[in-house]
Amino acid sequence: MPSSPTSEHASPPAFADILDAAARLRPVTRPTPLLEAPLLNELVGGRVLVKAEPLQRTGSFKFRGAYNRISRLSEAEREGGVVAFSSGNHAQGVAHAARLCGVPAVIVMPRDAPAIKLANTRAYGAEVILYDRPTEDREAIGARIAHERGATLVPPFDDPHIIAGQGTVGLELAEQLDGLGVAPDAVLCPCGGGGLIAGTSLALKERFPDLPIHAVEPAEFDDTRRSLAAGRRIANRPGAGSICDALLAPEPGVLTFSINRRTLAGGLAVSDDSVMRAMREAFRFLRIVIEPGGAVALAAILDGSFDAGGRTVAVVASGGNADPDLYMRALGSPGAA
Amino acid sequence: MPSSPTSEHASPPAFADILDAAARLRPVTRPTPLLEAPLLNELVGGRVLVKAEPLQRTGSFKFRGAYNRISRLSEAEREGGVVAFSSGNHAQGVAHAARLCGVPAVIVMPRDAPAIKLANTRAYGAEVILYDRPTEDREAIGARIAHERGATLVPPFDDPHIIAGQGTVGLELAEQLDGLGVAPDAVLCPCGGGGLIAGTSLALKERFPDLPIHAVEPAEFDDTRRSLAAGRRIANRPGAGSICDALLAPEPGVLTFSINRRTLAGGLAVSDDSVMRAMREAFRFLRIVIEPGGAVALAAILDGSFDAGGRTVAVVASGGNADPDLYMRALGSPGAA
Repeated sequence: MPSSPTSEHASPPAFADILDAAARLRPVTRPTPLLEAPLLNELVGGRVLVKAEPLQRTGSFKFRGAYNRISRLSEAEREGGVVAFSSGNHAQGVAHAARLCGVPAVIVMPRDAPAIKLANTRAYGAEVILYDRPTEDREAIGARIAHERGATLVPPFDDPHIIAGQGTVGLELAEQLDGLGVAPDAVLCPCGGGGLIAGTSLALKERFPDLPIHAVEPAEFDDTRRSLAAGRRIANRPGAGSICDALLAPEPGVLTFSINRRTLAGGLAVSDDSVMRAMREAFRFLRIVIEPGGAVALAAILDGSFDAGGRTVAVVASGGNADPDLYMRALGSPGAA
Repeated sequence: MPSSPTSEHASPPAFADILDAAARLRPVTRPTPLLEAPLLNELVGGRVLVKAEPLQRTGSFKFRGAYNRISRLSEAEREGGVVAFSSGNHAQGVAHAARLCGVPAVIVMPRDAPAIKLANTRAYGAEVILYDRPTEDREAIGARIAHERGATLVPPFDDPHIIAGQGTVGLELAEQLDGLGVAPDAVLCPCGGGGLIAGTSLALKERFPDLPIHAVEPAEFDDTRRSLAAGRRIANRPGAGSICDALLAPEPGVLTFSINRRTLAGGLAVSDDSVMRAMREAFRFLRIVIEPGGAVALAAILDGSFDAGGRTVAVVASGGNADPDLYMRALGSPGAA
């Protein structure tokens, strides 16, 4: 049960595809900064470098893959437009990339998506169609729209161009680490369907072949961690909940897992409380807004799931579209400064 | 009544001093990004480019001037250490710069400074001495410590090396605008004692001689606006209040005003409500944390004090050390998304 029609037929991308994506993205986006805070380093007793994707266009890495995919549509495909289903960050990335490319976009979003993500997706000019998460099938709705309008589906992760686009995060990170003269001891990256970490790990391994790269997931959504341990794709148990709305994919993608099983050292899982703390510490020490799903890798360092003591660790903060109410809860939660 | 012992004797810095400061800062800091958000542009009907100093070391531009000053101390001066008085951002900048230079630092801070600024200043390793804002004279306390310990006073703004250090913000901004191929229609910059905008305007005018540059201040703390209009330094009326704790200097500096009267087109003043809104929109559209004083320039665009319609305007966001309680109020205030 692949997550998109492309995944059974396509091959995973190679490093050259990431270089190609980077060239395509260069006119429309600049590298996001690699941030470091002396007080955060002191807190963990090591060196933490944070790749700040909340500062990417549309507030997450998702713009990269979406633009890399949509900018390659043929003239005929452009006319039919694109359709995507997403709880929010992929929605905004696709909506904005489609507008930049002059292509109409329909986004199928759950009715309970964070209000800020719904509002922003509409503001980028996309048509939003809402569905009921427990009772309706978003893939069926997406497929129906694709059929009716002749629209091209832009899958959230299991597509070679999407993975290659997200891989430009790793390409930039490798260049920035080189610029600092740093060879990191480890890299931690958030993982939902696995597109970001698949592309990013492919790019990083080209420069640092022996670098241990770890997927970080929300507790009870640690399908990639368990799949890596088992050597085959395992789905999450249904019915679990997490504040990390961006990381609730039901299972690893076919393409993404075919990469991640080769490139990753393993997986870690963090609690909602750890995520809230990471959001708060990022507010205090880095002055960037990180949304729950974007904060899991930093959370793993702060709660000790990964021991950064005496090491240099690069961490990807993948998105910053946090709902204000949840963010206020994170700032006000116990132990806040 | 000059704000520091240096201001009566020193000359204002020139552009060459800013280039010199940039060379000195290069090993310890990287340019902060110039951010842009399509939805923010749509909201104001123009193009807004935000120079993100919350992402500077210690969370504000203040590190620049402090490091430029402290790294120039003689061997004898280093032994006596440095002393500074500040409500917070200069405190953190001096504390961190002193530690990097291996120089002891004493910081005189008001008892009612934001808790996050007190905690961080101590965490950078400085000795903090608290005073009571209404009844005690911080300058006298600072002078006493300087005398007793043989410490060198690092003034908050009215010093040529401090101004030149802050001017590297303008130098980076000019380079980043050139990189984008953009000649802005105007620049807006927060203004307290005037050190940041003095250095920044000096640097910008070198590249864009006719560029209108506006100081933005909190309502009732618009001493620079009124001084520019009058052609001489005018102090604020005592007794006013503002959430912009970083911008409460009583009057323009001698050196800073001698520059600003030549370089600035004028001044604007914004309300606390406008500042809260700007913090909230920066959360939503830029995903950076801006503190109240750091948000005044963006506030002036959002509340219409400055009409950015159809124009390209660069805005300096000068700091991000926001108290969590106040930040939560800003996110939860009326009209929040």
